[in-house]
Amino acid sequence: QEVSQQETTYQISQRPDTDNPTEVAVGVYLIDFDTFDEIDESFKLNGYLFLTWQDQRLAFNPSQTAVNSKTYNIGEIWTPNIKFLNIESVRETAYILLKVEPDGTVYYKERFTGQFNSEMNLQRFPFDRQRLRVIVESLDNSKNLVLLADNSKTGTAKDAFLTGWRIRDFQAFPRVRVSEVEEENFSEYVYEINISRYHNPYIWNVFLPLFFIIIVSWTVFWSRSFESNTVIATSSLVSAIAFNIVVVEELPKVAYLTFINGFILIVYVFICLVIIYTVVKHWLDLEKKKELSLKIDRTARWLVPAVFSVSNIILIAAFLL
Amino acid sequence: QEVSQQETTYQISQRPDTDNPTEVAVGVYLIDFDTFDEIDESFKLNGYLFLTWQDQRLAFNPSQTAVNSKTYNIGEIWTPNIKFLNIESVRETAYILLKVEPDGTVYYKERFTGQFNSEMNLQRFPFDRQRLRVIVESLDNSKNLVLLADNSKTGTAKDAFLTGWRIRDFQAFPRVRVSEVEEENFSEYVYEINISRYHNPYIWNVFLPLFFIIIVSWTVFWSRSFESNTVIATSSLVSAIAFNIVVVEELPKVAYLTFINGFILIVYVFICLVIIYTVVKHWLDLEKKKELSLKIDRTARWLVPAVFSVSNIILIAAFLL
Amino acid sequence: QEVSQQETTYQISQRPDTDNPTEVAVGVYLIDFDTFDEIDESFKLNGYLFLTWQDQRLAFNPSQTAVNSKTYNIGEIWTPNIKFLNIESVRETAYILLKVEPDGTVYYKERFTGQFNSEMNLQRFPFDRQRLRVIVESLDNSKNLVLLADNSKTGTAKDAFLTGWRIRDFQAFPRVRVSEVEEENFSEYVYEINISRYHNPYIWNVFLPLFFIIIVSWTVFWSRSFESNTVIATSSLVSAIAFNIVVVEELPKVAYLTFINGFILIVYVFICLVIIYTVVKHWLDLEKKKELSLKIDRTARWLVPAVFSVSNIILIAAFLL
Amino acid sequence: QEVSQQETTYQISQRPDTDNPTEVAVGVYLIDFDTFDEIDESFKLNGYLFLTWQDQRLAFNPSQTAVNSKTYNIGEIWTPNIKFLNIESVRETAYILLKVEPDGTVYYKERFTGQFNSEMNLQRFPFDRQRLRVIVESLDNSKNLVLLADNSKTGTAKDAFLTGWRIRDFQAFPRVRVSEVEEENFSEYVYEINISRYHNPYIWNVFLPLFFIIIVSWTVFWSRSFESNTVIATSSLVSAIAFNIVVVEELPKVAYLTFINGFILIVYVFICLVIIYTVVKHWLDLEKKKELSLKIDRTARWLVPAVFSVSNIILIAAFLL
Amino acid sequence: QEVSQQETTYQISQRPDTDNPTEVAVGVYLIDFDTFDEIDESFKLNGYLFLTWQDQRLAFNPSQTAVNSKTYNIGEIWTPNIKFLNIESVRETAYILLKVEPDGTVYYKERFTGQFNSEMNLQRFPFDRQRLRVIVESLDNSKNLVLLADNSKTGTAKDAFLTGWRIRDFQAFPRVRVSEVEEENFSEYVYEINISRYHNPYIWNVFLPLFFIIIVSWTVFWSRSFESNTVIATSSLVSAIAFNIVVVEELPKVAYLTFINGFILIVYVFICLVIIYTVVKHWLDLEKKKELSLKIDRTARWLVPAVFSVSNIILIAAFLL
Repeated sequence: QEVSQQETTYQISQRPDTDNPTEVAVGVYLIDFDTFDEIDESFKLNGYLFLTWQDQRLAFNPSQTAVNSKTYNIGEIWTPNIKFLNIESVRETAYILLKVEPDGTVYYKERFTGQFNSEMNLQRFPFDRQRLRVIVESLDNSKNLVLLADNSKTGTAKDAFLTGWRIRDFQAFPRVRVSEVEEENFSEYVYEINISRYHNPYIWNVFLPLFFIIIVSWTVFWSRSFESNTVIATSSLVSAIAFNIVVVEELPKVAYLTFINGFILIVYVFICLVIIYTVVKHWLDLEKKKELSLKIDRTARWLVPAVFSVSNIILIAAFLL
Repeated sequence: QEVSQQETTYQISQRPDTDNPTEVAVGVYLIDFDTFDEIDESFKLNGYLFLTWQDQRLAFNPSQTAVNSKTYNIGEIWTPNIKFLNIESVRETAYILLKVEPDGTVYYKERFTGQFNSEMNLQRFPFDRQRLRVIVESLDNSKNLVLLADNSKTGTAKDAFLTGWRIRDFQAFPRVRVSEVEEENFSEYVYEINISRYHNPYIWNVFLPLFFIIIVSWTVFWSRSFESNTVIATSSLVSAIAFNIVVVEELPKVAYLTFINGFILIVYVFICLVIIYTVVKHWLDLEKKKELSLKIDRTARWLVPAVFSVSNIILIAAFLL
Repeated sequence: QEVSQQETTYQISQRPDTDNPTEVAVGVYLIDFDTFDEIDESFKLNGYLFLTWQDQRLAFNPSQTAVNSKTYNIGEIWTPNIKFLNIESVRETAYILLKVEPDGTVYYKERFTGQFNSEMNLQRFPFDRQRLRVIVESLDNSKNLVLLADNSKTGTAKDAFLTGWRIRDFQAFPRVRVSEVEEENFSEYVYEINISRYHNPYIWNVFLPLFFIIIVSWTVFWSRSFESNTVIATSSLVSAIAFNIVVVEELPKVAYLTFINGFILIVYVFICLVIIYTVVKHWLDLEKKKELSLKIDRTARWLVPAVFSVSNIILIAAFLL
Repeated sequence: QEVSQQETTYQISQRPDTDNPTEVAVGVYLIDFDTFDEIDESFKLNGYLFLTWQDQRLAFNPSQTAVNSKTYNIGEIWTPNIKFLNIESVRETAYILLKVEPDGTVYYKERFTGQFNSEMNLQRFPFDRQRLRVIVESLDNSKNLVLLADNSKTGTAKDAFLTGWRIRDFQAFPRVRVSEVEEENFSEYVYEINISRYHNPYIWNVFLPLFFIIIVSWTVFWSRSFESNTVIATSSLVSAIAFNIVVVEELPKVAYLTFINGFILIVYVFICLVIIYTVVKHWLDLEKKKELSLKIDRTARWLVPAVFSVSNIILIAAFLL
Repeated sequence: QEVSQQETTYQISQRPDTDNPTEVAVGVYLIDFDTFDEIDESFKLNGYLFLTWQDQRLAFNPSQTAVNSKTYNIGEIWTPNIKFLNIESVRETAYILLKVEPDGTVYYKERFTGQFNSEMNLQRFPFDRQRLRVIVESLDNSKNLVLLADNSKTGTAKDAFLTGWRIRDFQAFPRVRVSEVEEENFSEYVYEINISRYHNPYIWNVFLPLFFIIIVSWTVFWSRSFESNTVIATSSLVSAIAFNIVVVEELPKVAYLTFINGFILIVYVFICLVIIYTVVKHWLDLEKKKELSLKIDRTARWLVPAVFSVSNIILIAAFLL
């Protein structure tokens, strides 16, 4: 008799304790990354969303019921109205498990997949680290619903991987957001994954080849054949352009200069200088100033590599240190 | 007794006040852009749609009900039939919150995601600004439903970003659309976001390299080796083609000339002139007119850069001023 | 009493007048194009589908009901079973409005999005016009259901656009299709939009650069340096190949030659002839036939451009006239 | 009275005649191809699936019912459990029509869209023909359900097209599949469409340009300038590489050599031989063996084209005959 | 009477035998691969999921019921809560068949499609083998639900194929996973497909062309023309860059060096050495050390190919053995 009465009094639309804000401990656990789109600056991950809260109305006596925990379906009991703030459209839910312990503690476990927006700072590219954010927000006013961090349920799976990146560590913390258009405050839970890019492929595939090209262009300082020098120097230019185009297609159009763009610009400037140098040398020969021509050759042989090295040291200092 | 009767008389399909047009205040708030497709001239954003209207039938006495506002689910009360006009297919709705205040004011808050079409003017590309439009339309005749602008609920989130663009500001205003095929007028609400393109990446990756290439091609004015000159000039041509192809793949096929295409055409013309100039010089040498050949060299050294500069000033004046 | 009886006798699965074929006036109105895939030869558009038919069973007396028109939901009254024939899978319906006038005229308005297949004739590319077809078909035998054209409800929105194309005009007409496998005839309504391609981008980005390249290759008729000539001529070849590859990736693999392919083939042939000509000239010089070599140079200077012009005039005549 | 009883005895989950296997005549009719993915070796088509079977329980007396055929919705009568075997995930169903004739013959017509896997043999590419298979399978044991071919309902629409391919003809036949893991046999119906590739675009865009390049490289047999020869020969090499890369991106990574790859390999070998030949000629000149050098030139002029032709004839014989 | 009682006592949410863990035999059978994304390191397959377990509550007497097996719909009887662990979002289910034998053995057959994540080791690329994993997990504690391997129902279809790969064999085994954030153990079933890449296309399209290029660059050891040598050597460099870019776009950005990258790096180093060698030879000629110049030529002719071969043998030994 009593049980049925209790059930009729349980109102699913009402929070457990309407006098005080309901505290919900949130944990986000990364299972794996699905995709990562550098151009759109978004990533797709799938993970667990763990929620824990107290609902005294669901407490029960384990000796009576002969079970240590009760299982519910979604829609049978009150659950907090929680969404992701920086998600594109809606998260996909693979499944939800709801378990209540005798003391009324409700455990909510959801496996979800979502596409999240995350602005990136690519200034140090390809030596950059990124902070990928997943922001959980309560749709209810922070007077009613408060999100707490549940560190025991927050983490990243050991075998999670993201192609091209090393997953370093994560932070998680709650905070309060003041709405810009509504006169309300909302409780949030921020989960951040720190990743650092594998820069090795860029060293083998961009920096090293460009470095070879630059060295090849410097051979003009030892040669006296104008024709050969122009062939070498212009081939270097065409090669540098090819790498520039490859890099352009990988990066979003950011407002600032990235490290790799800076390096390519230096390479451009030096190759163009080499072409101009070659013509100057030729012109000196035409003007019967062969002595001067030989002299600048001897200087360029050590000066140009030195200035190139200094330029790159300055570039590294400005971008990476 | 009275309450239940009132409920039975509430007809969900009927507007609050059938004698007068229902006024709905609309607010659109951008949370974030998801994608932006330059080739298809469309963009995907997610945001809030705020609607506010009066429904006296839902007014209640807060002292009786002990709550300051009532919450409803969609389908329980009348809501205005509102869609996006320039959307591709249907918007995705993440969630809808419906709140009624004691005086019968209904607050509707929806988080939505939609792909919108927006024709772009790319004449000034990459120095262009675009106006992205989201048009809310009433499906009901403007005699029945009037949309108003709710400026307090309209805006853009501070941390919204669109890769490659700076979000500048927004406007919002209501207007009336006369249907072209139906004898009806429809009330609309137009929300415009102004964005300006980050042109820096194009300066580093297209303009500066092309400028280097042009300068390299001018070295032929100082050289007397026909073989070297052809190598330099034709390499410049091949390099310019490479950049042209990169630019072509980024832009939709618009009927008009864009700024960047204009610049590339100028570069083409000058490089081809340099090649022809080179052959002319060689031909003059063959014809034993070396004096003339040297003379035009001396003129070209300042004339060609000057004409190139003037061409670009004219281009800038025609497109950007 | 009578009304309730009438309602019970209304059978939703039955056509308004089972003795005669039901005539449905169809109007298709283009709101906007979403995408256009040249390679797959398909396009996606969203528009309105207007249907109008007579259903005497729904006629009512406006003085009794105090309204001038009744609104129904889909599924409440009989609606014709109508689909798109050339659609990929199913159309997405954003919304449907159903309105009945006192005389029993039913107005059906649907906003839909669909991906349609449409074979294209690209022979004149990029100076081609295309006819995009949207075919509405009745699933019922033409003895039962006849589609008529409703010209007042057919059209294209003024602000509709399709990237890369100019929307010219449209036609719409009904027709009857004889099924190839079933012994039945079906009534169809064909809506055609005529579009013409913006050819300007191809002129700036393909024809003009290739024209410059051809002109550059002709400089060999004025030069006596075999080395320079080979550099110029082979660079022209490499440049032409680059444009050929760009064009190949834009076009579907059609069985016939397109105008742009024809032009590129002519360019290939002329550049290869220039290379062979260069070697012939060099060979004549080796054989001590310098006089002959100079003579063919003087002829080639006007003959080759003339033949090239004639070739292109023939090409234009064959493809575009 | 009797009718209602009959209805209660009709069990939708039971086959028409449980004593004998139910025979279902299957017809597949291609409306149109949607996409074709060469790299993933899959295609998407939409068509009609026609099924015809006998269900005596649904037979009726047309004179009593005053209709010549009855229409049912799916779920109202028993339908065979039929799927596509080689489909990716599930087919999309646009609509299903179910019609029963007085003698109990049930006609089932479904418009479907599906993405099918189909391994391709590309050895003769681009002169290949492919056989695209759509396999209909019964989920029920072949003791219970037997699929037959209904040739009158099988075919391809006259205006069906597949970009880049000619649709030739089709076959359709039933067969029995022995399950590899279950001890059961399943009845299948195989529908095959034979298509042949339009090879013309490859002739214009790959074979003809490569042929021009090869001819250009042969000009070195008439020239005595080592510098020009290397320019011509290396440009040919770079051009051939460009076409190789274009072809690589169009083809899946198959384990065997395709015809086009074979041709490109021959082109590579001949261009490399030309480069080596050029150096040998130069070396002979250096070694003061000019007579020999001239002699091998005279031989190469006819020998190399001859060997090239023979190589290609062998290639064609090995791949295409 | 008894039957109806038994039915009322059957609780769908309860496991067959609550005193002991329920043992579920799992079989995964690959029908076909749909897609394989090397860059995102994921694959999509469709297959059968077979589950077999004992549910005494469903046992029946075949002589009474006159059938040898009963068929159920999903939702009518208890089924184990089983998901895929390494899936992206949710699997699509084409259909589920549920059959119960007289002794209470339940056979569950599901056709599913899923996109799975699978980290790859590409060090030996393109001579690599991969192990594609599909992990089935129980959502219930391993005290309640134990997964066993059902080898008779595990396999790969004979006509399954994966473009670019050879399907070799498969393993399947159960294991227990200790949760990192929950104090629970979960039973898992791991199904692994071993595939090896078709490396032939890479030999024809990358290794062989690069090998030709390297051989071409070695012709400079026989030539005394500095101009020709620079043309040959720089063309080789540009060609090698083209292949490098093609390879870069096919591979994900892994932290380690792959075999093909190692080979390309060796090619780069040797081509750059050839360019430098060329300049050195020219410089020796300028310095009137022609004897030395000829001498190093004679040495380089056999030394450079030898060192190149040794480098490649070391590379092969380090990566492939």
